[in-house]
Amino acid sequence: MVHQTTILVRTYECDGYGHVNNANFLHYLEVARHEYLKAIGFDYAACMKSGYGLYVTRVEIDYKRPAVLDDKLDVESMAIKKGVVSGILDQVIRLDGEVVARAKVTWAFVDAAGKPTRIPDRWNVPGLRPDS
Amino acid sequence: MVHQTTILVRTYECDGYGHVNNANFLHYLEVARHEYLKAIGFDYAACMKSGYGLYVTRVEIDYKRPAVLDDKLDVESMAIKKGVVSGILDQVIRLDGEVVARAKVTWAFVDAAGKPTRIPDRWNVPGLRPDS
Amino acid sequence: MVHQTTILVRTYECDGYGHVNNANFLHYLEVARHEYLKAIGFDYAACMKSGYGLYVTRVEIDYKRPAVLDDKLDVESMAIKKGVVSGILDQVIRLDGEVVARAKVTWAFVDAAGKPTRIPDRWNVPGLRPDS
Amino acid sequence: MVHQTTILVRTYECDGYGHVNNANFLHYLEVARHEYLKAIGFDYAACMKSGYGLYVTRVEIDYKRPAVLDDKLDVESMAIKKGVVSGILDQVIRLDGEVVARAKVTWAFVDAAGKPTRIPDRWNVPGLRPDS
Repeated sequence: MVHQTTILVRTYECDGYGHVNNANFLHYLEVARHEYLKAIGFDYAACMKSGYGLYVTRVEIDYKRPAVLDDKLDVESMAIKKGVVSGILDQVIRLDGEVVARAKVTWAFVDAAGKPTRIPDRWNVPGLRPDS
Repeated sequence: MVHQTTILVRTYECDGYGHVNNANFLHYLEVARHEYLKAIGFDYAACMKSGYGLYVTRVEIDYKRPAVLDDKLDVESMAIKKGVVSGILDQVIRLDGEVVARAKVTWAFVDAAGKPTRIPDRWNVPGLRPDS
Repeated sequence: MVHQTTILVRTYECDGYGHVNNANFLHYLEVARHEYLKAIGFDYAACMKSGYGLYVTRVEIDYKRPAVLDDKLDVESMAIKKGVVSGILDQVIRLDGEVVARAKVTWAFVDAAGKPTRIPDRWNVPGLRPDS
Repeated sequence: MVHQTTILVRTYECDGYGHVNNANFLHYLEVARHEYLKAIGFDYAACMKSGYGLYVTRVEIDYKRPAVLDDKLDVESMAIKKGVVSGILDQVIRLDGEVVARAKVTWAFVDAAGKPTRIPDRWNVPGLRPDS
């Protein structure tokens, strides 16, 4: 399953070059992951309240071309690996089909102490797996 | 008492004009208030943990001149009014003495439900008052 | 004319309380103003390229209630005053009809040197006026 | 040469967990690179004005432990690779010596069209090289 969401570049996200600042792409990826989690039935707020968390532990991102004000970006998110306590998402940001940025985001499921821990059944939803 | 702190303008805080984006001035004011609270012995983190909070309820800000990358801004914070559940701070951002922005920030002390409430003695430190 | 736009609260816009940070409301207002300008036929990017600018010179904002993750906020923008070089917008942020925040935003039309200047006909579009 | 700078975690940089949001680490790395460039005599603003630019083309970042409000972070930046049009920096964020995050940041020198280009002598300062 490839999850898709759309993000419109905002004025204050652009820097002195008129380009979206690098860090904002991480925000876009976070927005897309949040929508992806909702789409697969993973209730992030409830997860936090129950004392667990989903941390990002690693990001690899390649910036391919700049995005500018009013660009309507498509963000695709797809699970490509899933282990006992962690997994990897492939996320691609496109403008009119062209790749703007591509990232691999590693996440870990953590307990209240922030330690990676086996995902309880309630949170181990199928959509976290690559074959879903 | 006038509390003073210094903030160096960062790359990503500047927009397409090369100027600090308006919203970032609110960040600067927040940084300065946090330092001000520390200086007067108000432990913000402990306050939150004890179930209370300090909310901003109103901001009036006048932007007088732009700030740009690497500007070393001085931010002054001074209590100008103090009531039973709220107060007002005057905050001025300067560059080499010239006013860049000036704000009046109204705050309210709130309980766990977010309702304004009389400030318990522990948090009612003298530095919140104009005459301190 | 009341211009309306919708903004979905994002994960990273929320602070330690779980509430949208104050400065982010200024971002929301900026997003809404940008959409408002597009709607009235004011081309902001072209305006900047032609050497002019539209600066915010003053913001008064009242925070009425917190916004949280996934809130779908409605932002209304309405011109309430228009002078030769400047004007005032009333902007209201609502959640399900209830006011979350309300702001008066004063803007000035400026030349390449950043000085307020009479708005050239090309940019003096009717939608900037209260009676439009 | 290892360049060092210090960054104090700000209130609005922390999320619902009380932790610095992931994207803000990219901001910290950007602040540190800007200071590093100043330290090696690379005038970034002048570089932009002359029609060139320094783009980040890839970031690999590992998040090792959370940072929280008021943490005083040390950021080290060190050139580890230098080619004709690009290079790689190793950047480490520490708290009291412990690694909070570690990143490899690839940059490219670009012309006015945003295309990677051989670095002119004026900008090809020794400090960009690993052996400096």
